[in-house]
Amino acid sequence: MEDINLHFTGDFHAVTSAHNLLAAMIDNHIHQGNELDIDARRVLWRRTIDMNDRALRHIVVGLGGKPNGFPREDGFDITPASEIMAILGLSLNYADLKKRLGDIMVGYTRSGKPVYARDLKAHGAMAALLRDALKPNLVQTIENTPAIIHTGPFGNIAHGTNSILATKIALKLADIVITEAGFGADLGAEKFINIVSRLGGWAPKAAVIVASIRAMKFHGGVPKKALAEENVEAAVKGFANLEKHIENVRNWGIPPIVALNHFPTDTDAEIKAIAEKLDELGVPWALSDVWAKGGEGGIELAQKVLDAVENSNAELKPTYDLDEPLEDKIRRIAIEVYGAEDVDFVGKTRKTLKQLEELGFRDAFICMAKTQYSLSDDPKKLGRPTGFRITVREIRLSAGARFVIPVTGDIMTMPGLPKVPAAVNVDIDENGVISGLF
Amino acid sequence: MEDINLHFTGDFHAVTSAHNLLAAMIDNHIHQGNELDIDARRVLWRRTIDMNDRALRHIVVGLGGKPNGFPREDGFDITPASEIMAILGLSLNYADLKKRLGDIMVGYTRSGKPVYARDLKAHGAMAALLRDALKPNLVQTIENTPAIIHTGPFGNIAHGTNSILATKIALKLADIVITEAGFGADLGAEKFINIVSRLGGWAPKAAVIVASIRAMKFHGGVPKKALAEENVEAAVKGFANLEKHIENVRNWGIPPIVALNHFPTDTDAEIKAIAEKLDELGVPWALSDVWAKGGEGGIELAQKVLDAVENSNAELKPTYDLDEPLEDKIRRIAIEVYGAEDVDFVGKTRKTLKQLEELGFRDAFICMAKTQYSLSDDPKKLGRPTGFRITVREIRLSAGARFVIPVTGDIMTMPGLPKVPAAVNVDIDENGVISGLF
Amino acid sequence: MEDINLHFTGDFHAVTSAHNLLAAMIDNHIHQGNELDIDARRVLWRRTIDMNDRALRHIVVGLGGKPNGFPREDGFDITPASEIMAILGLSLNYADLKKRLGDIMVGYTRSGKPVYARDLKAHGAMAALLRDALKPNLVQTIENTPAIIHTGPFGNIAHGTNSILATKIALKLADIVITEAGFGADLGAEKFINIVSRLGGWAPKAAVIVASIRAMKFHGGVPKKALAEENVEAAVKGFANLEKHIENVRNWGIPPIVALNHFPTDTDAEIKAIAEKLDELGVPWALSDVWAKGGEGGIELAQKVLDAVENSNAELKPTYDLDEPLEDKIRRIAIEVYGAEDVDFVGKTRKTLKQLEELGFRDAFICMAKTQYSLSDDPKKLGRPTGFRITVREIRLSAGARFVIPVTGDIMTMPGLPKVPAAVNVDIDENGVISGLF
Amino acid sequence: MEDINLHFTGDFHAVTSAHNLLAAMIDNHIHQGNELDIDARRVLWRRTIDMNDRALRHIVVGLGGKPNGFPREDGFDITPASEIMAILGLSLNYADLKKRLGDIMVGYTRSGKPVYARDLKAHGAMAALLRDALKPNLVQTIENTPAIIHTGPFGNIAHGTNSILATKIALKLADIVITEAGFGADLGAEKFINIVSRLGGWAPKAAVIVASIRAMKFHGGVPKKALAEENVEAAVKGFANLEKHIENVRNWGIPPIVALNHFPTDTDAEIKAIAEKLDELGVPWALSDVWAKGGEGGIELAQKVLDAVENSNAELKPTYDLDEPLEDKIRRIAIEVYGAEDVDFVGKTRKTLKQLEELGFRDAFICMAKTQYSLSDDPKKLGRPTGFRITVREIRLSAGARFVIPVTGDIMTMPGLPKVPAAVNVDIDENGVISGLF
Repeated sequence: MEDINLHFTGDFHAVTSAHNLLAAMIDNHIHQGNELDIDARRVLWRRTIDMNDRALRHIVVGLGGKPNGFPREDGFDITPASEIMAILGLSLNYADLKKRLGDIMVGYTRSGKPVYARDLKAHGAMAALLRDALKPNLVQTIENTPAIIHTGPFGNIAHGTNSILATKIALKLADIVITEAGFGADLGAEKFINIVSRLGGWAPKAAVIVASIRAMKFHGGVPKKALAEENVEAAVKGFANLEKHIENVRNWGIPPIVALNHFPTDTDAEIKAIAEKLDELGVPWALSDVWAKGGEGGIELAQKVLDAVENSNAELKPTYDLDEPLEDKIRRIAIEVYGAEDVDFVGKTRKTLKQLEELGFRDAFICMAKTQYSLSDDPKKLGRPTGFRITVREIRLSAGARFVIPVTGDIMTMPGLPKVPAAVNVDIDENGVISGLF
Repeated sequence: MEDINLHFTGDFHAVTSAHNLLAAMIDNHIHQGNELDIDARRVLWRRTIDMNDRALRHIVVGLGGKPNGFPREDGFDITPASEIMAILGLSLNYADLKKRLGDIMVGYTRSGKPVYARDLKAHGAMAALLRDALKPNLVQTIENTPAIIHTGPFGNIAHGTNSILATKIALKLADIVITEAGFGADLGAEKFINIVSRLGGWAPKAAVIVASIRAMKFHGGVPKKALAEENVEAAVKGFANLEKHIENVRNWGIPPIVALNHFPTDTDAEIKAIAEKLDELGVPWALSDVWAKGGEGGIELAQKVLDAVENSNAELKPTYDLDEPLEDKIRRIAIEVYGAEDVDFVGKTRKTLKQLEELGFRDAFICMAKTQYSLSDDPKKLGRPTGFRITVREIRLSAGARFVIPVTGDIMTMPGLPKVPAAVNVDIDENGVISGLF
Repeated sequence: MEDINLHFTGDFHAVTSAHNLLAAMIDNHIHQGNELDIDARRVLWRRTIDMNDRALRHIVVGLGGKPNGFPREDGFDITPASEIMAILGLSLNYADLKKRLGDIMVGYTRSGKPVYARDLKAHGAMAALLRDALKPNLVQTIENTPAIIHTGPFGNIAHGTNSILATKIALKLADIVITEAGFGADLGAEKFINIVSRLGGWAPKAAVIVASIRAMKFHGGVPKKALAEENVEAAVKGFANLEKHIENVRNWGIPPIVALNHFPTDTDAEIKAIAEKLDELGVPWALSDVWAKGGEGGIELAQKVLDAVENSNAELKPTYDLDEPLEDKIRRIAIEVYGAEDVDFVGKTRKTLKQLEELGFRDAFICMAKTQYSLSDDPKKLGRPTGFRITVREIRLSAGARFVIPVTGDIMTMPGLPKVPAAVNVDIDENGVISGLF
Repeated sequence: MEDINLHFTGDFHAVTSAHNLLAAMIDNHIHQGNELDIDARRVLWRRTIDMNDRALRHIVVGLGGKPNGFPREDGFDITPASEIMAILGLSLNYADLKKRLGDIMVGYTRSGKPVYARDLKAHGAMAALLRDALKPNLVQTIENTPAIIHTGPFGNIAHGTNSILATKIALKLADIVITEAGFGADLGAEKFINIVSRLGGWAPKAAVIVASIRAMKFHGGVPKKALAEENVEAAVKGFANLEKHIENVRNWGIPPIVALNHFPTDTDAEIKAIAEKLDELGVPWALSDVWAKGGEGGIELAQKVLDAVENSNAELKPTYDLDEPLEDKIRRIAIEVYGAEDVDFVGKTRKTLKQLEELGFRDAFICMAKTQYSLSDDPKKLGRPTGFRITVREIRLSAGARFVIPVTGDIMTMPGLPKVPAAVNVDIDENGVISGLF
């Protein structure tokens, strides 16, 4: 467990290194005569670090005079938000990886032309740094079943799923492959359907929606501290949130199964009430006791999934066509998947979308950056909010991943540490045994 | 080879992560109420990255308003210059590692009191991140002999040698252990004698000084482009540089052996002239043809080393006593080891040294940061310069390593990339084969 | 003319000095122990300079280490946008001036409480610096008639009119006082009615709207280069813009008179067409030839104004009541005065308005910052646009002036120089005669 | 008095405006295509403000993205340190003023060539802004005698004297002209002799050295709080400081007179002791009671001055020849005028001096920036220190003034406010009467 949570096989470090190599080569190019005439004010390629570090969100680099290059505004994103992480998760082989790395758009010239990583001849070395990271990592669960863990694009700011290569390998090795698409049907599943499955060329036979009565009570208005107390009414009210996720999955043409993560505090009355709601919707479901009992606790759920897969009539219906205008694609996701009324494109975002279409990115995927705490872009809007608008405050381009990334609400691509960082509780004893990681 | 040169076992990444975790915790502490009253202007702990990136030498972080913390001046050093790298190289076990990490002085409070990593409760998690990195790495040469590679503190800005743990393990496993102390007798050997050997508790039986006629010609005034041409006179003139290294080693009480790296362009006349100079000094020497012929080419040298070790009357005489004033220790190194006339302490460096003595660091080691291109602090002063002064322009403290670091001349703790970065020539083919690394 | 355009009586310099004294005292307070616990990230008081200097819009100050104070983000506004300029224009006497200066809110403490200029004891010295600047300046026109010029708050970013004191003095000295309220009925007049007249305690008897056929053609879609050509149709189309200004003035209960600034390029057909439109609306008007003929050219206009004043049944009807919520007041101006559909409060602006109401500023005046080139907040929307929304992207508070300032569209409080600055053409000869100012 | 101390005739504001106009034009030029290829890292022209504001010493401007220009490091100096102030004080007429303004070197191109204000066509407008400021200001003392006050270059960071124009006018109007050269013989007098008199083409007949027993006691080691107590010994000890000033004046070939400012706390014994020392040196002297008694109190001193002037055999002997190398000129001042042992040129200062000589500034004046609190560059070295070295840490060029400015010790060209700024005590009452200025 520590191995996975600390450095694992070093893939994140490799992504960080490849990312920052490109950043260093950009500043070096500007410093060494700037043959490409890169506009220091319009460098789009930020730096990256695998650390929650708010102080690095917005920085000024290149200070200290002539030997240190030209001052410019910059910032660090967390490694999972790096375009390199996305590219690594999407690349099918070394040639694909290298092409995508070369396609990264790093900024503009002073006359407004795009500059790509290949213009800096950075992509070969970047790919070399990623040589081992492109290979999926095989691990085993505590019950010794195999699992493939590969790449870590967070679902709120990136595409949120295991790598395509990992899934392809798994599909060759097993009868049934289960993959996780992080954070819910609004984020992980949306991206898994609209981006990853299209690129992977597959269609999922069924989708497990992981839910809990505890979470429903929270969405029903119960404060965190009171979640241990029975509250049937709130659970039923908060069920509206789950209902939207079920609807979304059905809209994509995939049969849903609900896994109810069983908490010791769930009461019979609560379970009964939610069971009734689920039955009303005709959705198969099971209590999951995997946390408490291991594989044993998931047998009923597994059986339901097997049934669903065997009888699946899944037919993938993505939310948008790739050749629609970028604005329309974003609007479709917001309205159809989130349930928003409409989208507000503030500042220069609409202008940026037009420029990107002119630069040839009209057919790009949309990779939303949105809070995972609400179906809306406001973490405080719980349950199944209606009448809300999504605010797109920034547009980023991941040209190598072919993603257009609308940054919505207050979502950030670099988190901060809490008042008491988890690190404070981590320790290692004289024998090298680590404690406090969980 | 790529494995060692790319990510190896991830030790550098672990050092980088541990280092930057502490940095993030400092800024987070200031942001979250600043209970310790850390003075944002006097944070000494910079950030680190394993990249040549001049744009990060001097930066401003924490911009963008209240959610991003307090703005302050900061910078990145290259990972080999990180105090964590030094600590890793000096720590004897997990307890020692954790203690040293906790001892790191990260800055001052507004009222001028020192703040340590342990005050932020950061050292446990940092040590956990270094769990595997503390373990030395066993590799094999292309002739399948074992070698232990562990930690990478560059000799011009750090202590320049393999870890103490690696050496201790080697000493238990082999009859003869050879270790490299980077960059010459002025830097690597000085620190190996004065810092590492004292901490390791050993005394080297002999010291191999690696030299080349090519380098002697360079020190004798020959421009790089003309080094392939015979120039006995210049070689003899440049021999003065080697002579100083030999003297230094003898002053430390250790018998030197000179390994003359044999280049195809060395002429018989040149070799003869240098051989005479070496014989005059009574120092054993051998031509080394290891680069061309492998182990075969080093047999004569190995024999000389064995002789020296067997007949050694080595008695370690460090350059300074630990309880001398910091200024005196620095001056001793400059005068006795570099051959300087004296030291200029500019700006606030003398004041800083006094403060450090008051804070209890009078008995700290001195770890000079100095160019490796000259015995002086000016890379243009070749041969064996005299009459020069060493300029100490900044004093840094590595409290966990118990190093006081005088930064001299123009030496920088973050290099920049050249006009054409090596990365431009690195590539990977469709089978994952890397080219262009050397 | 140079006297007025260069340094005049030094009032702008005095405003600049008083403004920057407060800024220096804030940073000094933070540096010297920060007894008030001012949050360096939430200092609202920027610096000011009487120069078009875009490089100063957004800066970081306090760099260079401990002796230079704490780094923080800051910026300069142009002097006419300074709150001090507004205060100077509104103050009735020294006591009022000093009170208002003391009331300036400079920022927040770390615990979120407001900090005022009086907390820093800065207002006495600031008032002393403004001693002479508070006195209105009497000048004469080139026909030797008196004019009082006092304070310079630009109408697009501030309240846009002569000082209250100047107008009060004029009202005591003359039968008829004419004052200019810069940039049109949407900006200058709106603020003159809703802010200045309420504070001055007067009601204008009539309002002269200065228009030109040239401008109407521009609003009718004619590009700048073609404005010299006859285009009756465009003039009539662009008349819609003037019509809105006339409506606005009438809505405030004031009889309008239109002054048509006569350009040599105006054709009879154009004048006839516009005259008909004005007659249709029943608004008195006259051609003004003052630019070409001096006072002589304004006699007809003057007669019309006298008639209007003598027969005035003006009854001031401000756009909003002071006790309405801030959002409502802003919305009223946008909808009723600009003709907008609604207002978009983006980012944290709505939250800021609520905080200001909680801090006791619900009854503050609204002083819009909006482009003068359009009735909307988009300089490209000419004529009388409809169906548009006003975007409030920032809320500023001038607590001493009791202004809440919604910053709309892309309006900036610090202009930049054009590609060829006017200064390039300014010169002085050996006798001190200045050329090129106009 | 307030008039002179607040805005006076606006000359400082005019200098500030002209200075900052040039700064704005530089950044604007870079922003608007940078036709001259100015290197943003090597702009030498800082900004200026007439305010003690340490937060502006070192700043980063041009932040906030493309519309705000290119980020770069910058800073503000206080207006008396502005090269414009120096130029204004040296210019003989409008043509000279304009030429000097055009000669200002603002920075370097990326290829290392100098860029001048005239290249930006800024000097005409700058001169226009200074039209009235070039004219000396006539005021009267409280005894109604005339005085000309013109320009304010502080003697510790600039050339420290009234303008040449003011002195020339005075010389035409009066039999005897007395001018003040700020801060002592080491600063004001040195510059008056070596710079101003050479440019003005005059030779002073005599020099009054203003001293006080109080100051001598301070230089003799008495802490400030104890200066009111009699201490003959300390006064005699501190006399060494005055002795050096007397020697300096004599070395320049000018007869000195000492004015002893009479303090109520001076005791007869102290006066007697100092009188003896002065008589020993054969220097004429008088007690001055002007502060207490007005002109009446200065009659004896005036008589001594008249005697000295009438019997003067003054023959001006400047410290250096203009055609000596820059380093030599600096060394001469340090050794001969300050009594230093030698000069340390740290960092890149020696290199800069060489570059300036190559650019044609070998014949420039030297205008030292040095603390006024000591004959050395260390404000703590009182009395007549010996054995000290002057540290030149930065070289600035005022090409329009033809000054090379060695910045020594810790002297700063932008002061900061004290813990309790004087402004805190300044107030204005309801009648506009200012209090607290002194």
